Amino acid sequence: MSEDAPTVGIVMGSDSDWPVMEDAAKALEVFGISYEADVVSAHRMPHEMIAYGSEAAERGIKVIIAGAGGAAHLPGMLAAVTPLPVIGVPVPLRHLDGMDSLLSIVQMPAGVPVATVAVGAARNAGLLAARILGVEDPALRKRMREFQEELRNQAKEKGERLRRQSSPGSASAGFGAA
Amino acid sequence: MSEDAPTVGIVMGSDSDWPVMEDAAKALEVFGISYEADVVSAHRMPHEMIAYGSEAAERGIKVIIAGAGGAAHLPGMLAAVTPLPVIGVPVPLRHLDGMDSLLSIVQMPAGVPVATVAVGAARNAGLLAARILGVEDPALRKRMREFQEELRNQAKEKGERLRRQSSPGSASAGFGAA
Amino acid sequence: MSEDAPTVGIVMGSDSDWPVMEDAAKALEVFGISYEADVVSAHRMPHEMIAYGSEAAERGIKVIIAGAGGAAHLPGMLAAVTPLPVIGVPVPLRHLDGMDSLLSIVQMPAGVPVATVAVGAARNAGLLAARILGVEDPALRKRMREFQEELRNQAKEKGERLRRQSSPGSASAGFGAA
Amino acid sequence: MSEDAPTVGIVMGSDSDWPVMEDAAKALEVFGISYEADVVSAHRMPHEMIAYGSEAAERGIKVIIAGAGGAAHLPGMLAAVTPLPVIGVPVPLRHLDGMDSLLSIVQMPAGVPVATVAVGAARNAGLLAARILGVEDPALRKRMREFQEELRNQAKEKGERLRRQSSPGSASAGFGAA
Amino acid sequence: MSEDAPTVGIVMGSDSDWPVMEDAAKALEVFGISYEADVVSAHRMPHEMIAYGSEAAERGIKVIIAGAGGAAHLPGMLAAVTPLPVIGVPVPLRHLDGMDSLLSIVQMPAGVPVATVAVGAARNAGLLAARILGVEDPALRKRMREFQEELRNQAKEKGERLRRQSSPGSASAGFGAA
Amino acid sequence: MSEDAPTVGIVMGSDSDWPVMEDAAKALEVFGISYEADVVSAHRMPHEMIAYGSEAAERGIKVIIAGAGGAAHLPGMLAAVTPLPVIGVPVPLRHLDGMDSLLSIVQMPAGVPVATVAVGAARNAGLLAARILGVEDPALRKRMREFQEELRNQAKEKGERLRRQSSPGSASAGFGAA
Amino acid sequence: MSEDAPTVGIVMGSDSDWPVMEDAAKALEVFGISYEADVVSAHRMPHEMIAYGSEAAERGIKVIIAGAGGAAHLPGMLAAVTPLPVIGVPVPLRHLDGMDSLLSIVQMPAGVPVATVAVGAARNAGLLAARILGVEDPALRKRMREFQEELRNQAKEKGERLRRQSSPGSASAGFGAA
Amino acid sequence: MSEDAPTVGIVMGSDSDWPVMEDAAKALEVFGISYEADVVSAHRMPHEMIAYGSEAAERGIKVIIAGAGGAAHLPGMLAAVTPLPVIGVPVPLRHLDGMDSLLSIVQMPAGVPVATVAVGAARNAGLLAARILGVEDPALRKRMREFQEELRNQAKEKGERLRRQSSPGSASAGFGAA
Repeated sequence: MSEDAPTVGIVMGSDSDWPVMEDAAKALEVFGISYEADVVSAHRMPHEMIAYGSEAAERGIKVIIAGAGGAAHLPGMLAAVTPLPVIGVPVPLRHLDGMDSLLSIVQMPAGVPVATVAVGAARNAGLLAARILGVEDPALRKRMREFQEELRNQAKEKGERLRRQSSPGSASAGFGAA
Repeated sequence: MSEDAPTVGIVMGSDSDWPVMEDAAKALEVFGISYEADVVSAHRMPHEMIAYGSEAAERGIKVIIAGAGGAAHLPGMLAAVTPLPVIGVPVPLRHLDGMDSLLSIVQMPAGVPVATVAVGAARNAGLLAARILGVEDPALRKRMREFQEELRNQAKEKGERLRRQSSPGSASAGFGAA
Repeated sequence: MSEDAPTVGIVMGSDSDWPVMEDAAKALEVFGISYEADVVSAHRMPHEMIAYGSEAAERGIKVIIAGAGGAAHLPGMLAAVTPLPVIGVPVPLRHLDGMDSLLSIVQMPAGVPVATVAVGAARNAGLLAARILGVEDPALRKRMREFQEELRNQAKEKGERLRRQSSPGSASAGFGAA
Repeated sequence: MSEDAPTVGIVMGSDSDWPVMEDAAKALEVFGISYEADVVSAHRMPHEMIAYGSEAAERGIKVIIAGAGGAAHLPGMLAAVTPLPVIGVPVPLRHLDGMDSLLSIVQMPAGVPVATVAVGAARNAGLLAARILGVEDPALRKRMREFQEELRNQAKEKGERLRRQSSPGSASAGFGAA
Repeated sequence: MSEDAPTVGIVMGSDSDWPVMEDAAKALEVFGISYEADVVSAHRMPHEMIAYGSEAAERGIKVIIAGAGGAAHLPGMLAAVTPLPVIGVPVPLRHLDGMDSLLSIVQMPAGVPVATVAVGAARNAGLLAARILGVEDPALRKRMREFQEELRNQAKEKGERLRRQSSPGSASAGFGAA
Repeated sequence: MSEDAPTVGIVMGSDSDWPVMEDAAKALEVFGISYEADVVSAHRMPHEMIAYGSEAAERGIKVIIAGAGGAAHLPGMLAAVTPLPVIGVPVPLRHLDGMDSLLSIVQMPAGVPVATVAVGAARNAGLLAARILGVEDPALRKRMREFQEELRNQAKEKGERLRRQSSPGSASAGFGAA
Repeated sequence: MSEDAPTVGIVMGSDSDWPVMEDAAKALEVFGISYEADVVSAHRMPHEMIAYGSEAAERGIKVIIAGAGGAAHLPGMLAAVTPLPVIGVPVPLRHLDGMDSLLSIVQMPAGVPVATVAVGAARNAGLLAARILGVEDPALRKRMREFQEELRNQAKEKGERLRRQSSPGSASAGFGAA
Repeated sequence: MSEDAPTVGIVMGSDSDWPVMEDAAKALEVFGISYEADVVSAHRMPHEMIAYGSEAAERGIKVIIAGAGGAAHLPGMLAAVTPLPVIGVPVPLRHLDGMDSLLSIVQMPAGVPVATVAVGAARNAGLLAARILGVEDPALRKRMREFQEELRNQAKEKGERLRRQSSPGSASAGFGAA
């Protein structure tokens, strides 16, 4: 994987989305995947947005991760001008709890798909990019398996902790404690 | 009002939206406002869409009416590239009853407004365009008042009909009919 | 633009809505558009509300911006008694996150449109009024283009900042950091 | 109860609501309560609507039943101009299944209540009017008790029918019939 | 109005609802209407709840106000056993913002109406009770008119304050302040 | 299992719910579980409903399945008066697609649980009753395992059919067929 | 009831769900029902999850309580591999207020039921397990009746407290206090 | 691309989903991508489902497309046991219009992403798979660009048709036709 050219483009409508979108970057770093992060607003800089999407493949970008909130048009518009897979992250805004962001991203018309993840789930967007890049990269796919194994071990450790912590001892039958 | 250059642009993502959007055209015709109707898909012809919005004002268009469904990006993207007022019509699709269309159109970020009307309410989009054009056109505003008067008279006639039709005569007190 | 007579009327059901609606006033000030702000409650002062709407056009008002929450009737009722364009701002209340306000404003019946903006989006209401007034005012439309250019430049600066801030340096591949 | 002056006013925004609202009239007839039915549109005839509400009490109306759909403003606006109890019936329109109608009617601000019933539930609006009128009318309240008894008997008869109809006889244990 | 027997029963599923329901009591006090407040839980004391509803009319109660949250069964169950009008207040719980409470109260089946007010709107429940009691009490109805006049005056004063406060003076046209 | 006394009580607010609720009966028959079906309306026959719930355990009923729609109070009220497990089936009505029924049944307050299944899922209610009865009945639990095996085999057969049916043969690469 | 083998399995996708799920354990302790608590993640340890469900019955577990949030698959997947009754607790996450959790758990397909309780209602899950275990355990069922009696007494005490606290004394008729 | 081993696995919970999911197969055929279609039910054949997901990568599958409805667990469970990218298609069922399916698929917890497309949008799932496979296949990516060009041309042709069809001729100004 070249250090020079980023493989994944992480874009968002405003830098105020970075605290959410940063998790995508962190997930990519874990897998040693190079990326770039940028503000590309569909509504405030539409021409630059179109240019970003149109040129991404030629610049060596292989997957685009786009976060947006409210009437979130960035992921879908990028998908309209690139043949690359575009992953959409619905960023929750102050009202409606991200439901507007989710529907604006996922409900794309036939012909132009956006790979949508959960509300605010930028980390999963990074992991999905890693899975996509792993399709033709056995080493990366192997790392994904190891990562899944790591998740499993962490969950099992949590289980051990919980079993100790919640140990009911002699189950008290005191009725008054209801 | 020139007959040559249309004053209102009615655009939609697909000609399958025309049965809904046609009501906007009909409303404009009532007010003698010239218009053009076109397919301008944000997702299938993004470059033409950007061009349409960017050039509309120069071509003499004064108001844009844009209908779209699902992850409806057309009204918002046009608003991003034109200084004209853009009216958005949420077109209901097969699922979710237009709620996705509504939120995708109305929940625009600060800086780029879309004047949104009710789900499927293309006729009201046409009437809103007429109100906007009437801001500096006393004759048009007068017609709007007349139109409102006409609505009022129609409603009153309906009331007369209903009063006759529903006349309870001697209110029957038959309990068994509950 | 006359300094004496306000061009835009900003009204709301209670002065408790002012912190939200103030953004409409600020947006108008940026464009040098005169306005008035007032409390006009559909439910608490219905006669004054009807009078306000009925007389607005004669007083020189060209666009009405109306904010309301919950069962928000103010924008629609004003639209019923004026031929002017009415912009509705759904004010979010304590419960339901503004969804009730949005539906009460946007779902107007055929014949009486309200130009609805996003939940709490008073600033966009002001900008929409500026677009509407720009339909016949080339200078104002030019300012809107400049404003859009300004938005674009601000977004681009944010992008530069983010590109520096998020610079991944040598993408760490430490797996444990997942 | 005088036959001349109606006791309950049943109003709606259009005569197309009559097939729904008619059930309110039928319920009142069962209790021998006189009524009038009229089209009073908040949006198409706002002045007449204000007049209707303002004068209803003086004309001898004691309860108003108002049906409306979408951005349903009729019940709330009537409640704003009358001291009488107003019952609101959310009429479902083509989209959103009456949820917009319900929220537009029930979410009234402090000071101006509307007694809201279920989506499309005009019959219950009539029965609620009967309960309200029964507050000071022992005979009417007695009829309400009899009506409730009648409901109970009908339900019990349905139970008997169902018990016969669903009689499982020898509960077959054939597994293949899953 | 007798001081001995309360006219309105305010009931709720738990005393934790009192901070919400107290507003109903306060509204009644303004109108000099006597009331009682009690915990009557449909789910924890169903027999007492049935008894409360069945006997309310005989005890002189004329209107019941019932507040409940979540799967809110109290208003509907009381309506099933009394011929009195029952006003339901959807109390918002920790999740779902009162939407579950609202639907559980308002969507009553044909035959058994509940007069539903807005989520958390106990004050309006009290005012609705006053309107209902005013149907046969001219003095009370007159007070309601005075109360509405008072609301109107308060709103008008707020308007005056806002007009002073928001006075734009010389509308600044500084573009940078956008 | 005695043939005389039913083990499961299937109740509903009206016999119009039987076409939905019948599937619960059919599922029970497959497992040879005796049942009774009855109309027990919380709103139309509240006293009988309370009696039904209070006496069910004494009559030998072990599980109650209750179906109801809209403001669905039957399952929760029965749960309030019986120590037996109560399974609630949200019956979808004409509007709101069963969402009101679901929330009215599942959102029970602390202390009184209802075991809720999917909207309209009476068959699953029957199967859940069978699982509950199988807790202390090894033979019944064994049948449940066999039933699950049967489901699995049916699904596998469907897979075989689909694999044959969808066989793409030589994957056509004709682009025009898009 | 054996002290060695737990009767109820309380499982959740992460130990971060324990503060919610702990209430299930507390409810079981009140009834002297033994339990185990464990982390069993459908998504992070799917094989262990399948094993847990498949072996639960053989290990003596009689009821499984499973809590999960978001795309909550744990309750349904366990129900797919066990013949035991599975109780699902929708755990609310940061966004969407538990509505995603609720629908992901309750809307199970025909053949595989999950007994769903309210959002966050782990205590009710424990009580439902107690009702299920009481089907064949008269002593446990008797305790459930006593518990219900206790709930009733607590509610009645709250009523007494509220009646004292809210005592309106001489109902003040001060109008200014509105 | 080998003709022997399928590259994409299209799986669904029941063959009744095939009419929806077939569009994914058709989209893949357009791009000459080999696939297999199968019934793999998370709830009815959980062991086979786990096996399918665990072995897919080894069998040469590179992308999995999984359709499911209601409490849709198939896509998420497959994602839990494979390192491949999994595309989820929310299949709408009879009630709730696919909202339950959508939330059950998209709201996955951190660590295990599912690439979700619109409700019922199997065709877009196929196109997303093509984009993913095109990441390392320049020929396929070129075809995607051609496909996008084709979409664009079709949209432009629709525009031409609509422009002819909607040609307003001499805009009639007849007011009576409103």
